[in-house]
Amino acid sequence: MLDALGIGEVMLRLAAPRHARLEQADVLEVFPGGAELNVMATLAGLGCKTAWVSKLTNNPLGRRIARAARANNVDVSRVVWTDEGRIGLYFVEFGCGLRATDSYYDRQGSSINLLTPEELDWEFILNTRILHLTGITVALSDNCEQLVRTAIERAKAAGVTVSFDVNYRSKLWGVERARNTLEDILPQVDILINTNADNALLFGIAGDPEDAIRRTKERFGVQVAVLTLKNGGAIACADEVYSSQPVFTPEVLDRIGAGDAFTAGFLYGYLQGDLPRAVQIGSAMAALKHTLYGDHAPMRWEEIERIMAGTEGEIRR
Amino acid sequence: MLDALGIGEVMLRLAAPRHARLEQADVLEVFPGGAELNVMATLAGLGCKTAWVSKLTNNPLGRRIARAARANNVDVSRVVWTDEGRIGLYFVEFGCGLRATDSYYDRQGSSINLLTPEELDWEFILNTRILHLTGITVALSDNCEQLVRTAIERAKAAGVTVSFDVNYRSKLWGVERARNTLEDILPQVDILINTNADNALLFGIAGDPEDAIRRTKERFGVQVAVLTLKNGGAIACADEVYSSQPVFTPEVLDRIGAGDAFTAGFLYGYLQGDLPRAVQIGSAMAALKHTLYGDHAPMRWEEIERIMAGTEGEIRR
Amino acid sequence: MLDALGIGEVMLRLAAPRHARLEQADVLEVFPGGAELNVMATLAGLGCKTAWVSKLTNNPLGRRIARAARANNVDVSRVVWTDEGRIGLYFVEFGCGLRATDSYYDRQGSSINLLTPEELDWEFILNTRILHLTGITVALSDNCEQLVRTAIERAKAAGVTVSFDVNYRSKLWGVERARNTLEDILPQVDILINTNADNALLFGIAGDPEDAIRRTKERFGVQVAVLTLKNGGAIACADEVYSSQPVFTPEVLDRIGAGDAFTAGFLYGYLQGDLPRAVQIGSAMAALKHTLYGDHAPMRWEEIERIMAGTEGEIRR
Amino acid sequence: MLDALGIGEVMLRLAAPRHARLEQADVLEVFPGGAELNVMATLAGLGCKTAWVSKLTNNPLGRRIARAARANNVDVSRVVWTDEGRIGLYFVEFGCGLRATDSYYDRQGSSINLLTPEELDWEFILNTRILHLTGITVALSDNCEQLVRTAIERAKAAGVTVSFDVNYRSKLWGVERARNTLEDILPQVDILINTNADNALLFGIAGDPEDAIRRTKERFGVQVAVLTLKNGGAIACADEVYSSQPVFTPEVLDRIGAGDAFTAGFLYGYLQGDLPRAVQIGSAMAALKHTLYGDHAPMRWEEIERIMAGTEGEIRR
Amino acid sequence: MLDALGIGEVMLRLAAPRHARLEQADVLEVFPGGAELNVMATLAGLGCKTAWVSKLTNNPLGRRIARAARANNVDVSRVVWTDEGRIGLYFVEFGCGLRATDSYYDRQGSSINLLTPEELDWEFILNTRILHLTGITVALSDNCEQLVRTAIERAKAAGVTVSFDVNYRSKLWGVERARNTLEDILPQVDILINTNADNALLFGIAGDPEDAIRRTKERFGVQVAVLTLKNGGAIACADEVYSSQPVFTPEVLDRIGAGDAFTAGFLYGYLQGDLPRAVQIGSAMAALKHTLYGDHAPMRWEEIERIMAGTEGEIRR
Amino acid sequence: MLDALGIGEVMLRLAAPRHARLEQADVLEVFPGGAELNVMATLAGLGCKTAWVSKLTNNPLGRRIARAARANNVDVSRVVWTDEGRIGLYFVEFGCGLRATDSYYDRQGSSINLLTPEELDWEFILNTRILHLTGITVALSDNCEQLVRTAIERAKAAGVTVSFDVNYRSKLWGVERARNTLEDILPQVDILINTNADNALLFGIAGDPEDAIRRTKERFGVQVAVLTLKNGGAIACADEVYSSQPVFTPEVLDRIGAGDAFTAGFLYGYLQGDLPRAVQIGSAMAALKHTLYGDHAPMRWEEIERIMAGTEGEIRR
Repeated sequence: MLDALGIGEVMLRLAAPRHARLEQADVLEVFPGGAELNVMATLAGLGCKTAWVSKLTNNPLGRRIARAARANNVDVSRVVWTDEGRIGLYFVEFGCGLRATDSYYDRQGSSINLLTPEELDWEFILNTRILHLTGITVALSDNCEQLVRTAIERAKAAGVTVSFDVNYRSKLWGVERARNTLEDILPQVDILINTNADNALLFGIAGDPEDAIRRTKERFGVQVAVLTLKNGGAIACADEVYSSQPVFTPEVLDRIGAGDAFTAGFLYGYLQGDLPRAVQIGSAMAALKHTLYGDHAPMRWEEIERIMAGTEGEIRR
Repeated sequence: MLDALGIGEVMLRLAAPRHARLEQADVLEVFPGGAELNVMATLAGLGCKTAWVSKLTNNPLGRRIARAARANNVDVSRVVWTDEGRIGLYFVEFGCGLRATDSYYDRQGSSINLLTPEELDWEFILNTRILHLTGITVALSDNCEQLVRTAIERAKAAGVTVSFDVNYRSKLWGVERARNTLEDILPQVDILINTNADNALLFGIAGDPEDAIRRTKERFGVQVAVLTLKNGGAIACADEVYSSQPVFTPEVLDRIGAGDAFTAGFLYGYLQGDLPRAVQIGSAMAALKHTLYGDHAPMRWEEIERIMAGTEGEIRR
Repeated sequence: MLDALGIGEVMLRLAAPRHARLEQADVLEVFPGGAELNVMATLAGLGCKTAWVSKLTNNPLGRRIARAARANNVDVSRVVWTDEGRIGLYFVEFGCGLRATDSYYDRQGSSINLLTPEELDWEFILNTRILHLTGITVALSDNCEQLVRTAIERAKAAGVTVSFDVNYRSKLWGVERARNTLEDILPQVDILINTNADNALLFGIAGDPEDAIRRTKERFGVQVAVLTLKNGGAIACADEVYSSQPVFTPEVLDRIGAGDAFTAGFLYGYLQGDLPRAVQIGSAMAALKHTLYGDHAPMRWEEIERIMAGTEGEIRR
Repeated sequence: MLDALGIGEVMLRLAAPRHARLEQADVLEVFPGGAELNVMATLAGLGCKTAWVSKLTNNPLGRRIARAARANNVDVSRVVWTDEGRIGLYFVEFGCGLRATDSYYDRQGSSINLLTPEELDWEFILNTRILHLTGITVALSDNCEQLVRTAIERAKAAGVTVSFDVNYRSKLWGVERARNTLEDILPQVDILINTNADNALLFGIAGDPEDAIRRTKERFGVQVAVLTLKNGGAIACADEVYSSQPVFTPEVLDRIGAGDAFTAGFLYGYLQGDLPRAVQIGSAMAALKHTLYGDHAPMRWEEIERIMAGTEGEIRR
Repeated sequence: MLDALGIGEVMLRLAAPRHARLEQADVLEVFPGGAELNVMATLAGLGCKTAWVSKLTNNPLGRRIARAARANNVDVSRVVWTDEGRIGLYFVEFGCGLRATDSYYDRQGSSINLLTPEELDWEFILNTRILHLTGITVALSDNCEQLVRTAIERAKAAGVTVSFDVNYRSKLWGVERARNTLEDILPQVDILINTNADNALLFGIAGDPEDAIRRTKERFGVQVAVLTLKNGGAIACADEVYSSQPVFTPEVLDRIGAGDAFTAGFLYGYLQGDLPRAVQIGSAMAALKHTLYGDHAPMRWEEIERIMAGTEGEIRR
Repeated sequence: MLDALGIGEVMLRLAAPRHARLEQADVLEVFPGGAELNVMATLAGLGCKTAWVSKLTNNPLGRRIARAARANNVDVSRVVWTDEGRIGLYFVEFGCGLRATDSYYDRQGSSINLLTPEELDWEFILNTRILHLTGITVALSDNCEQLVRTAIERAKAAGVTVSFDVNYRSKLWGVERARNTLEDILPQVDILINTNADNALLFGIAGDPEDAIRRTKERFGVQVAVLTLKNGGAIACADEVYSSQPVFTPEVLDRIGAGDAFTAGFLYGYLQGDLPRAVQIGSAMAALKHTLYGDHAPMRWEEIERIMAGTEGEIRR
């Protein structure tokens, strides 16, 4: 039985190196990234059994993604391959100092939009402790929204825990459409993860985090609600409310994927049945992700423990 | 007055470095390339006044293309900018030895498909000695085919010489569609350029080059017909038949764009009114292009002259 | 009519990568840079019509500079080409933390020193709203000083606004020679730009910035005086005194050219007739420049606006 | 059931880039390579189910190897992990023209030398159609020799076909020790693969290939004997003798691993029960490997077919 | 006569570039580093005459080390060359922000472990003002410990000042073994250098630095005791106690070797007979080292002086 | 006593990477090169004691050169350092196939032009078996010509063998000036080295090599005359005539410095008193140099022997 399985899109991220402008870049760095795979890859690195399911175009770009997933020990044997569609791309320009990181999606017509529930091996998919989904897939197309709804429905029927990260992307959909759609979907998930800021933006649940998390759990009737905070901490609400110390890193290499690292850490703690710890692990891993290049990266448990304990130090030799 | 103006698509070529497999590449090299711009850039490097017209999405990728064109001294002031569409891409895996170079187009929905004749500054466009078009644009979409037809029509009405390079791409359209469409278009152009092989494939005009070139000119009723030969030479037919010595380079760095380099060289000679020389220049420049990276590259006239004279040597110091 | 035109030298900057020592570097990064071109390129990126005039040796290094200028949409059609002289170079070793960035000029005998007023197309040059010059050119040689004096004289006669950035370089000339020469030249310019520190060093105008800027304007009788401050702010004096908020970037990628970015921003505001805004724009663009590699770099107006408004954020997606 | 499983060492190959001398290299390119994994990875790329078994030190270098194997779809779930030993290394200096490629082993004390038969999951290992072993493992240490002997014994008992590639390495053992040991081992394998040259060097079986292959099969009593020839061809002997056309590539990027590519191709044909074809496929894949960087690389079946058919061409677009 | 001579191991440091994980790195950056050579190279860069003695395997890796030492003007003419052993390696993963730099030694069986006192040219070695040794060599093997003891003995007999940097490495030996061995060796050295932290850890001499340094000098009866402090300062005790201002760099490029840079700076001051200054120089050079890549790097005296005077600034031009 | 000492200029070669055009290069590869140092470095790599003398500007570029020379074990302790002048540069664009390698000198005003005989340590310089000089130095300036004349004079007086490589550079001086000057100098040298082609161009000694070499020796009255031939061979004439087999390399990485590699090889054989062998060694080393990057590179004696014996092979493992 798998510990966790994610369904979603992976794009190739094409990034200008060293903070360069995309319009001046002569090379682009390639990295496969997608919220659900990021979580699965990070969990696999910590020893969990995970899989990722999607539809990929059978060309070198699609194979590039599968290679990366497998390297991270994520099972991709149930990915559906097709000769149609294309691999989504997103172009990234890393910010620096007061300049923000900017991204440009080029994902229209990507193969996941062609994926239908009938093509999937549901027996495999539902043989997992956690099914992880995100709002990004919902935003992609009607077809993808339907895919997510079907997956949640089947998971609930099979007694699989559904984890859902809102992951609001303003370049994909507007606040109103997101709110309307998500308000319908969220009540059916078990674990709801969001940023505090998007929670306020989308659902108007602002104010004191401890208060906001309670209201969020109540509003959507989920088993566990989790909010990540701007200050590097997080807060969760199940039977009780648990919150983490903010974890901050003085130097940032690549902040993309930090939210997914949090989610991976939280689910890792959740799988061990320790929610207070889950919030701590998530915060530490989100901070650690800021220091590693790529949408996801191998993390070592000893390192995470040292970061949580504040004993990581400067050089180990 | 311009010497030459091209209308067409430019894609960003994203190539795996050093003969690597695309599915293993961690960086991709960026180079803007498109048949018509390649010819304009090469001509501009030799001192001609040239411009290139297209429709570009106003994002860093579109600006990347305009920067490159301007660097090469090609006027892009009449490019139409849009917030819609996307910049076409093509992924390249450079071959080596017995392994072929492979390419993967990802150009659907690119901005040139949104370009309509009404958006163009025809006064500017028709103020040129040569208007250069290619079969690639015709193959892209109905809209683009219409654009080419309109351009040819207006050029003829304005007395502008139309140069047309067939540039058959089997990944864009089949032989039959290409033949049917081109048989309708080619009789209206002035200078028709093709490879000997595609001339046989598309129009069944095979056999002895000198014979083939005569039949080609006759078949389409063009002012000048030009065929490039597998052996590195070329042959042209206007009033008389002119052919070049094959020019061969013992080492190949990047053969993409060699046909466009030939065309640039041929048009350079044509603009000087010397057709026999035009065939020679084209062959030398096609060979030179094989030794330069990118779909097009700066070429120096002295160098071309030395190559034609066989005095290039090994080191100049 | 041009918005702005600059006359001056552009050198190739050869920089050791990644903070390395020049004596250990196996590769050097090439970037064309010169105060006047930096300003013109940055203005062109914001949509202004600009040109740059100089004398360049007709070899690959000279052509490298022209390519870069054209890529940035700066008109270089009136650059004078020569087979004599050489392209000036400067070697850069990027500092880090407490270690300063160091530079080594190798610009003696460069082609601009061979440029005489008679070679220039003054009709073209004077068809501009602003003529931009700097103290660097004055410092290069007697010939260059004469060039600057002639340009100012002709501009005044033609009613063209002269902008002059003192840009004091201690590796080019001493304080005394600079003071003597500039005291003669500055009263003839319209817009005088300097750093607060050099204003004190060269002209002894120290103390409170608001006081210093008034005294500077009065001392040289210019239309507008501008001082950039160590804290990232700036102050200008025309009819009134306007000052900007300091803009600071917590991470610095390349501080070379920040002064030129300020100047570009200031002139951009000046061209729109809004001096208070000009000071703000300049400060924001100077800060932004610190986060971009190269003596100049493309800047996007939306980005500058967000920086001025404090809404730039961390990731845009 | 697996198609093939290999047991052996994988080292990290650290190669000076671009034909540089190791003593001048400032960076080294990392590539995990080992004869048995090379074969498994290549087979997996063609769609076979394969696994690789070894003992790896649990540090980033060991994990580097496992990541690469998994990326290539090779099952490494039965690799034995240890905190002892080290990951073997080999340093490579790529030759050029008349200069040979040179290699320096630094593999003493590597973890595979600590691997004992008892640590292995034999049930998993023997659930395969082919067990692939090489003479390299035999040469490493007494322990490794014993491992190979045990594996062969168990495979024979389980009815698993044993493939054995002699892979003589003069830097590991002398001719005499190799001969004595191998003469004892080879009679127990089913498929024996060797180069014609080493066959002569080690066993004195020289002369006409057709004659040599018959004598080799007879001498060791194997089911299939295969010899690769200097000219790029190969010859095999089972019931009959089959030989391939020499396949040659005019440009060589990296010849390391060409023998393993041959073996993969041969076994691929063998698994399909077509020995004459197996010899052809092996030769084509050995030639193709010369054009790809790394000890092994993804190969596409269409490409191999085109190479065998002589229709690969120059550019596909 | 030499100013200083060091005996010890140099390893090749193989570092993942740009903060990457070693298990994801496709290239490794090579840098020869070892505490004793680091000190000699840095001193030589400041104009001292220095030499380094060790045993190196005669392969490209060994020659790589000798080339680097000679480039830095360190005399390696008395290095003993051997065909046995191997060159020690250490793999480095540079940390970032809250993530520590990690290192993995692969130095077992390295050639220095084969070095015996009889192989050395003691006449050359003892013709120096300072003999520099470190605790690393002591920790390597019994043989190396014996080498250090012999060297100290001979130096004392010859009246050569012995400098000894404890350089405790927990990955090489435990606290207890280190303490026992060092307590026996340290009383025989003249200059004892340690970090304050390791002084507490190994010898239990904690608390107020001024107090700790006095107790350290007394405990081991050395001529000069030096402790570097966590805050970037240092303190020394000879006849009196001297301490430096903490020197801090706001940005860190590579902190490896900072301790050796301190030692070089301290010995530089010591050689000039100015202990108070020696402590200052050492602190400035340790801070400067943090901004330079590599275990050691060229430092310029003017730069060090400017750092001590606080006049280094931002750009020099 | 030294085996050989060279006097001459070393420039920094700044080369566009991978056959790129200089005007498109964003990085330049740095390599210190100069005919005399190339020979000394190569000889030192083979175990000879060598030194190189020149005048270098004391900046990072000058120190870059000294570091490289020392890394190669060339004694640079007698280089004269100055704060004046500059380090000469030359820009290289590597050719490919039919396109020639091109170079652009930027060496005017370089520090060697400021070197006067009085500044040199002649006692050190003349304590050598061979003093090596080239025509390049003669061509640089009157001052340099005088330096060469003085050196030859003093060497003759001291009984030191003078080796002189004509090394004609058409970008430095014309045929006539070269002929006039060299005809005066050559009769005073002992070993005269030239290419067959330049021997014809400058001195009109064309035709059959065996005849040409005799006439050359006679014409200038030298002890040994050596001519390198276009086909990769060489011929020498002392008491008798000796010639080598042409040595050819099928792939060329960098042909710059091949002549200096020949000279190093020839002098290596000469120092061993074996002229026939000297010609062979020189030819093998010239061919080997074509496969190594840089104006000079480490060569291994075993490799040279294998090349001469034709046993180098393809991979050594």
